[in-house]
Amino acid sequence: MNYRIERLAIIGVGLIGGSLARALRAQGSVGEIVGYGRTLENLSEAVRLGVIDGAENSASAAVRGSDMVVVAVPIGSMGQVLEEIRDALSPTAVVTDVGSVKAPVVTDARAALGTRFRDFVPGHPIAGTERSGVTASFAELFARRRVILTPNPDTDLAAVAQVRAMWTAAGADVKTMTAAEHDHVLAASSHLPHALAYALVDMFVRLDEHRAIFDCAGGGFRDFTRIAASDPTMWRDIFLANRVELLALLGQYQDDLRGLAEAIERGDSQWLWDTCARAQRAREQLGAVDESGGD
Amino acid sequence: MNYRIERLAIIGVGLIGGSLARALRAQGSVGEIVGYGRTLENLSEAVRLGVIDGAENSASAAVRGSDMVVVAVPIGSMGQVLEEIRDALSPTAVVTDVGSVKAPVVTDARAALGTRFRDFVPGHPIAGTERSGVTASFAELFARRRVILTPNPDTDLAAVAQVRAMWTAAGADVKTMTAAEHDHVLAASSHLPHALAYALVDMFVRLDEHRAIFDCAGGGFRDFTRIAASDPTMWRDIFLANRVELLALLGQYQDDLRGLAEAIERGDSQWLWDTCARAQRAREQLGAVDESGGD
Repeated sequence: MNYRIERLAIIGVGLIGGSLARALRAQGSVGEIVGYGRTLENLSEAVRLGVIDGAENSASAAVRGSDMVVVAVPIGSMGQVLEEIRDALSPTAVVTDVGSVKAPVVTDARAALGTRFRDFVPGHPIAGTERSGVTASFAELFARRRVILTPNPDTDLAAVAQVRAMWTAAGADVKTMTAAEHDHVLAASSHLPHALAYALVDMFVRLDEHRAIFDCAGGGFRDFTRIAASDPTMWRDIFLANRVELLALLGQYQDDLRGLAEAIERGDSQWLWDTCARAQRAREQLGAVDESGGD
Repeated sequence: MNYRIERLAIIGVGLIGGSLARALRAQGSVGEIVGYGRTLENLSEAVRLGVIDGAENSASAAVRGSDMVVVAVPIGSMGQVLEEIRDALSPTAVVTDVGSVKAPVVTDARAALGTRFRDFVPGHPIAGTERSGVTASFAELFARRRVILTPNPDTDLAAVAQVRAMWTAAGADVKTMTAAEHDHVLAASSHLPHALAYALVDMFVRLDEHRAIFDCAGGGFRDFTRIAASDPTMWRDIFLANRVELLALLGQYQDDLRGLAEAIERGDSQWLWDTCARAQRAREQLGAVDESGGD
């Protein structure tokens, strides 16, 4: 593939930003990679590991002269970072993000970027693990994973093509939908499960017998709660950013749990079997977990 | 180890029964293994795979002449199977089960076994995968996994020692507690997570956009819902058998979800961060999922 980035700026060199840098480097798709992030410790580690060629002192210094800018920060910080970099962007630069909620990011980007909003391509790689930071990054994170881009009518088509080419070079399978569709679907496939896992582990922590519970944890419990080890800042931001969709699903799930509790209470063997069997068939179609990754 | 079973009867040659047979055979801890089960197809497969030496036509034929009897059937069928085999048990036979709820099994066993109740050692290996049947069985399933035995004051100590030795030979780490303690702790570490996973997948199945949701499923969703692919008959029985403990936890979880929804609704950033961070710390202590197994 002829796709090549001359100078790539990664704002937020964590699991996602670091893995993207590694993947593009491994493919020979990038010249120089510069990074900026909040903590000096993580940035130094990124340089030491060779994930980035150099660290800059500010986001705007990192984007200066870069043809591709990837903003991989918690979505609560997105607007501020985009505002900071706007005036330093080179005229031909393309900007993208990796946030897990898209509509609020688009709103923030429109407000922050002004005329450069057309060069901003909202994106979300559905990949990750429960670990954070550049030390957790690896080049294969996006291999055969889905990346969703949510351009809008204002977005420059050439910019979309470049971001698509970047993710394809990193090994991902790129798909396009509207930001609203994305947020509706991801609320179910990702945000609700994370909220449920955090709530469950937190409930257990507050039980007197929590040591015995953790001591008797089998692989099922471990798998079910793995996502509760994810970064709390990132997920707090996601829950708030996608609150309308998340609350709708959470309400529906609470109704369903009431139905489940009632069926158990009245000993409704048939209802329980039907429900479990329907879920089992659906889950089996989804296939096995043959990946290490989360989202 | 000198521990040896001369003739082992497995009633229900599925994932658990089959894996136990394979493990004991691999250790040279067993002479002959005979099996009985509901479906001829699975039994024939067990013989073909060499998991059992022979299939019998009835549970009582299988236990005749056996010194160790492992009943590995859904807990709803336990009482009936134990009643069926009682009169065929050899005078020195020890009987154990692998049910995921212990107090109801003990009640059923007491009623079904009469004077032989003292030779019954209630057991629960916390191991398994979401797959069922003898084809899913493997000798290493119990390696370093916890097995909980819940003997009561009536149980013969020599019988407990034999069942403990059997599971130790299979590679497991054996622990003893009361049936009530077991059911209380397992309701949290296993039964509630399974109920929540079934309810979530079933909710998604009933949504119009369920294809898009499954299509956007990352590793997090896959891990979180893996246990919903478990056998519906087995889990229906567990939910009903442990209903008091399960309903108490389900009620508490529903309260917690209400609190979570309210915090999201009022945009309580601090509450959300605190809750997620507390769960994250606890889950990190539990460690990574370095096993293929569930329960």
